[in-house]
Amino acid sequence: MSYVINFWLEQVRVCVRFVCMIFLEKVAILGAGLLGASLAKALKEKGVVGEVSVWSRSESTRNKCAQLNSVFNYVCNTPQKAVENADMVVLCTPTQNIPELAREIAGSLKDNAILTDVGSVKSKICAECTEALKDCNAVFVGSHPMAGSEKIGVDYSEATLFENRPCFVVGNEQSPQVEKVSQMWESVGMKTYIVSASEHDCIVSRVSHLPHLLAGTLCVVSSQFPKDLRKYVGPGFRDTTRVASGSPDIWDSIIADNKTEILLALKDYVNSLNELIMQIGSDDKASIALRLRLAKTFRDGLV
Amino acid sequence: MSYVINFWLEQVRVCVRFVCMIFLEKVAILGAGLLGASLAKALKEKGVVGEVSVWSRSESTRNKCAQLNSVFNYVCNTPQKAVENADMVVLCTPTQNIPELAREIAGSLKDNAILTDVGSVKSKICAECTEALKDCNAVFVGSHPMAGSEKIGVDYSEATLFENRPCFVVGNEQSPQVEKVSQMWESVGMKTYIVSASEHDCIVSRVSHLPHLLAGTLCVVSSQFPKDLRKYVGPGFRDTTRVASGSPDIWDSIIADNKTEILLALKDYVNSLNELIMQIGSDDKASIALRLRLAKTFRDGLV
Repeated sequence: MSYVINFWLEQVRVCVRFVCMIFLEKVAILGAGLLGASLAKALKEKGVVGEVSVWSRSESTRNKCAQLNSVFNYVCNTPQKAVENADMVVLCTPTQNIPELAREIAGSLKDNAILTDVGSVKSKICAECTEALKDCNAVFVGSHPMAGSEKIGVDYSEATLFENRPCFVVGNEQSPQVEKVSQMWESVGMKTYIVSASEHDCIVSRVSHLPHLLAGTLCVVSSQFPKDLRKYVGPGFRDTTRVASGSPDIWDSIIADNKTEILLALKDYVNSLNELIMQIGSDDKASIALRLRLAKTFRDGLV
Repeated sequence: MSYVINFWLEQVRVCVRFVCMIFLEKVAILGAGLLGASLAKALKEKGVVGEVSVWSRSESTRNKCAQLNSVFNYVCNTPQKAVENADMVVLCTPTQNIPELAREIAGSLKDNAILTDVGSVKSKICAECTEALKDCNAVFVGSHPMAGSEKIGVDYSEATLFENRPCFVVGNEQSPQVEKVSQMWESVGMKTYIVSASEHDCIVSRVSHLPHLLAGTLCVVSSQFPKDLRKYVGPGFRDTTRVASGSPDIWDSIIADNKTEILLALKDYVNSLNELIMQIGSDDKASIALRLRLAKTFRDGLV
C-alpha cells in the first residue's frame, strides 16, 4: 500500500517540477573556466535563462568570452558589475578564491539573489560565504557539480558537461533557495543530492579526493622507480592514473580544506592495503579471491 | 661519431627487418579467448600467416570459432591435433594452465617449432615450459603482449587489439627464435621489448599488477563504507577503478606467481602513502605541492 502511495507521490512531484520548471531572468557566472563556461552554454541551450553575464580575472579569458556572444550577454571587467541585477550568481573560480570573491560582491547583489558555487569542499566555503552575506538580503547555497575533466579552461567548455552527473546541493530540502539551485543543476541534466556540508565533505573525500591522491601516489612511486616505466604502460595504468593530470593548484586547497576527511579516507585505504599485503605474504588465497570478487562486484555495479 | 654509426646501424636493421618480414606457414592458437582470437584475426588480416588452427577447452567457444571460417582454418577437439605441423604455437589460456598445456602438447610439436604464450608472469612459466620441451626439438620463448580488456572471450576479439601496445619477449636478442616471436608480435602492431624473465616480472608488477590491486582495494574500501557511495561517483572514480572489473580467476594465479615483486611494489606504495599522510597531517604544503606536480609531470609524460 505504502509502495502505491509513494509511487503516486513521486508522479505528482515530477508533474509539479515540470510545471514549475525553473526560469532565471539573469545569471552571473564569476570565473569562466571549464565549469563556468560550460554552465553558461548549457543554461542557454536549455532555454532556462534570459541573460548571462560573466566576469573572469584573466583578460584573455574575457576576450574569449566576448567572442561567445550567443552565450554571454555581458562580459564585465569587475565581479561587482557582473552580478548587478542577477537572480542567480555562480562562483566558478578555484575553491580557494570563493570566500574572498563572495565578500567582494556581497554589497552588489540584488535583493533576494541566490549565490552558489562549484567548490569541491563545502564546510569551509558554506560557513565563510554565509558569513560574507550576513549584512545583505541574499542567500548562499553551496553546490558541487561532480563534472569536469583534466582539461581546463573556456576552450574545452561544452553544454553537455553536466549530463547525468551527480551534483550536491548543501542545505535543507524545505528551503526555496535550495530548491531553486537544485532546479538549476537539474535543468542542465544533473542528478542532485541535498546534503549537509559535512556529509558532502565525507562523501567526496571517498569518491573524488581519495582516488585522486591514490592516482597521484601511483605516479610518484612509478617516477621514483630506477627504470623508466613509461614505455611499458598499457591502458590499465593510463586509466588508473588519469586524474593525476589534474591541476595541482586546485588540489593544494582541496587537501587543506578537507584535511580531516581525507586523512580518514587515506588511513582506511592504507589499512586495507596492509591487510592485502598480509594475505599475499601468507598465501591466504581464499581471502585474496574474496577481495577480488568483492572489488569486481562493486565496480561492475557502477556501470 | 658513435651516434652516426648507431643511426646507420639502426637504418640497416629496419631494412633487414622489412626484407625479412615474417611469414608463418601455420600458427596454432591454443585457447580462443580475447587474446587468442584477436591474434588469429590480426595475423590473418596482416597476411603474415598461411593457416591458423585453433583449440579451445570449451565446446561453445569451438563452435564460435568454427563460424569464423575466414580466420580459423582448423578447429580442433584436442590441443595435440591443433599443433600438428605448426611452425608457431601460441598458448593463450589463463596463466595457470600454460605449463600443463605445454607438457600435454610437447610430444606433438613439429621439429623446430616455436612455442610461445601470453601469460602475465614469466619466471615460473618460462622455467616450466622450457622443462616441458626438454625432450623434443622445439623451443619455448615466453611472451607477454600488454593488450587486453576487462571484456573477455572470443566475442570481443578484434584484429586491432595489439596496435601500438607494448609486448615483452623473454630471452636473448641473438636467438633466432626470440627474433621470430618478436617479429610475429611486431607484425600485428606491437612494440616489442626483449628482457629477462625476472626483469619482466619486476616491470609488470609495477605497471600492471600494482594498478590492478590498487583499483581493487579502492573498490573494497568503498564497498565497506557505511554509505552507498556508488550513486555519487563521477568519471574520475570510474577510470581509477576500471581494471578492478577484470576476471578474479586470472588474478588469483598472477598474484601467486609474482608474489615477491608484487609485495615489493605494494610496500613501496604503502610507504609513499604514509609519507603523504604525514605531509597532510603536518600541513606540509610545499611537499604536497611538489608531489602533486611530480605526479602530473609523470602522467602527462605518458600521453
